[in-house]
Amino acid sequence: MSYQLYQYEKLKPFCLKVFAGYGFDPGESEIITDVLLCADLYGIESHGIQRLFRYHQEITGGVVKIGAKSTVVHETPVSAVLDANHGMGQIAGVNAMELAIQKAKISGIGMVSVRNSNHYGIAGYFANMAVQEDLMGICMTNTESIAVPTFGKKAMLGTNPVALGFPADPVDFLFDAATTVVPRGKLEVYNKNNKPLPDGWAVDTNGQPCQNAGEIINNLIEKLGGGIAPLGGLGELHGGHKGYGLGIIVDIFTGILSSGMTSNYINTKQGQTNIAHFFMAVDHGLFGDKEAIKEHMSGFLRELRESPKADGKERIYTHGEKEFESKKQKLLSGIPINEKTLAELNEIAGYHGIEETFVIATR
Amino acid sequence: MSYQLYQYEKLKPFCLKVFAGYGFDPGESEIITDVLLCADLYGIESHGIQRLFRYHQEITGGVVKIGAKSTVVHETPVSAVLDANHGMGQIAGVNAMELAIQKAKISGIGMVSVRNSNHYGIAGYFANMAVQEDLMGICMTNTESIAVPTFGKKAMLGTNPVALGFPADPVDFLFDAATTVVPRGKLEVYNKNNKPLPDGWAVDTNGQPCQNAGEIINNLIEKLGGGIAPLGGLGELHGGHKGYGLGIIVDIFTGILSSGMTSNYINTKQGQTNIAHFFMAVDHGLFGDKEAIKEHMSGFLRELRESPKADGKERIYTHGEKEFESKKQKLLSGIPINEKTLAELNEIAGYHGIEETFVIATR
Repeated sequence: MSYQLYQYEKLKPFCLKVFAGYGFDPGESEIITDVLLCADLYGIESHGIQRLFRYHQEITGGVVKIGAKSTVVHETPVSAVLDANHGMGQIAGVNAMELAIQKAKISGIGMVSVRNSNHYGIAGYFANMAVQEDLMGICMTNTESIAVPTFGKKAMLGTNPVALGFPADPVDFLFDAATTVVPRGKLEVYNKNNKPLPDGWAVDTNGQPCQNAGEIINNLIEKLGGGIAPLGGLGELHGGHKGYGLGIIVDIFTGILSSGMTSNYINTKQGQTNIAHFFMAVDHGLFGDKEAIKEHMSGFLRELRESPKADGKERIYTHGEKEFESKKQKLLSGIPINEKTLAELNEIAGYHGIEETFVIATR
Repeated sequence: MSYQLYQYEKLKPFCLKVFAGYGFDPGESEIITDVLLCADLYGIESHGIQRLFRYHQEITGGVVKIGAKSTVVHETPVSAVLDANHGMGQIAGVNAMELAIQKAKISGIGMVSVRNSNHYGIAGYFANMAVQEDLMGICMTNTESIAVPTFGKKAMLGTNPVALGFPADPVDFLFDAATTVVPRGKLEVYNKNNKPLPDGWAVDTNGQPCQNAGEIINNLIEKLGGGIAPLGGLGELHGGHKGYGLGIIVDIFTGILSSGMTSNYINTKQGQTNIAHFFMAVDHGLFGDKEAIKEHMSGFLRELRESPKADGKERIYTHGEKEFESKKQKLLSGIPINEKTLAELNEIAGYHGIEETFVIATR
């Protein structure tokens, strides 16, 4: 698939026009655009502008409610439950993390669980909001079921990613990972390239290991059974029961604490989704001198990066480095967009009557 | 290796006598014994009475300080940092979780990070303390380094286990797992049985995949390099960078927040260890009606257990089930102890002048 580079400065106003076109107010359009393009800048193409067409379908199809405001269902000085009322996940996410940050600044900790939301982009964006306020940030979301429990053959858990950010020099720590062995997007790449899946990634409708990416994807779409393995793989040999448990934990903080829906009830093919999120901000000043703790953290990460490399490897990363380096580079040289997405962007532009054309290179 | 069954009622008074013999007061001996035998009852032999000889060596060798009391270094209504002053990890652990529970009952949340401690047994014991008070419990500990960072060849992170417990009917949720692909004990079992390690579990001193359990163990003991893979395995293909990140996260909550030592500085061969722990209790009443939330959780776990089984599999577990069933069974039929441990128990009895002999079956 061919890619073309587009400048962030061109994509941002385009996205703002698109979201305004759906009826989002300027502040909301700004939020959604910022989360969306942040994924592209971080190099997480799956959650970037290539997802705009899916949002387009969900918004125009009425799954995402325009104008929905998050309402507070339950609140204490250290916690809250919000109902996103089926609004755009990015808006609910930013509102919820802002509330968690506000509570952390007053009480030291803020935990906010959100129900009845939609896809919110990358979890790391929200964890990083807290880091920008010199706090530890944690963020989780459940998603439509895609992962089978250990010894199961029906997808019952989402990719259920967890993000955790912590301030550090010269680069903040920013972990953001699905609790499955891979996200669904990885299967799509293998399918596109007609490559067999690595052993232990997925099971068929009988719960047996399966290396056919197309079959797995179709089974998931049609809800025929089977799915992706939890982090740690199939069975217990490599710790698959651990990833399975981590997936449950994400559903506890999201679907359970919000009194919302757990992964196994989320169905994007139905009228509305009920995705649940969780946001937490912790002031590490609760544990001592903030500057000293940050310095300790920076030293620890540096020791990991500087530890001896495996033969043939040149670099050990700490989490967040790849993303922040990618952002720097892409702000300079542009964001790569694939030809399929470019065609979709043209369709969306046409829908809104935006006079903007994305030229698709002929191969 | 041959095993013999011993009744819990026989082992408990023996352990109490042993710990009293070292100079622990009755309350302390009760705590250490309870944590130790809980591991055996849960079926986690590696952390049970077979570990008593290692504790014996650490206590008599002066690594563990008898009579050390945890002191409060920093405290707020929702947090604390304790210095365990090199006392027994179980005592520091129970003290810290009791403090976290007390804070959670008043403020909704209690987070306690502990430094300068020793091995504390199973993380799940402490998480379960909160569950018994109808709270969510979280517990983590760092350990001596055993895991190599992704693309590294030097062990920089411990097994760094995480436990999370949440009340549910008919069986509570209790997750307790290392963030490595396996704990060190698993390598020892492969070594004893002269079996090659599964691919992707460990690397040699050059950072290359290695299936020789004896070599890996020796390298770790002698600190020659190499070690165990993070959860997700070596490299990034199966998500090893995720397990690597989870290991870092455990060190953030333990070594960093306590201003103590991170995994890479813990060396049990030196005069004293500096293991760090983390304990958290959360009142889920912060998020709504506790009974309704518990019922929701119970239903979700039931749905997971009752979901379709992979062909050839008869049961899907939720975390904690195996442990609670094992406890029930072992309280009735006894705890299996291997012959090597029985000989060690006799040696310890002799050390203290306790008139008790563990008969070792002739094979």
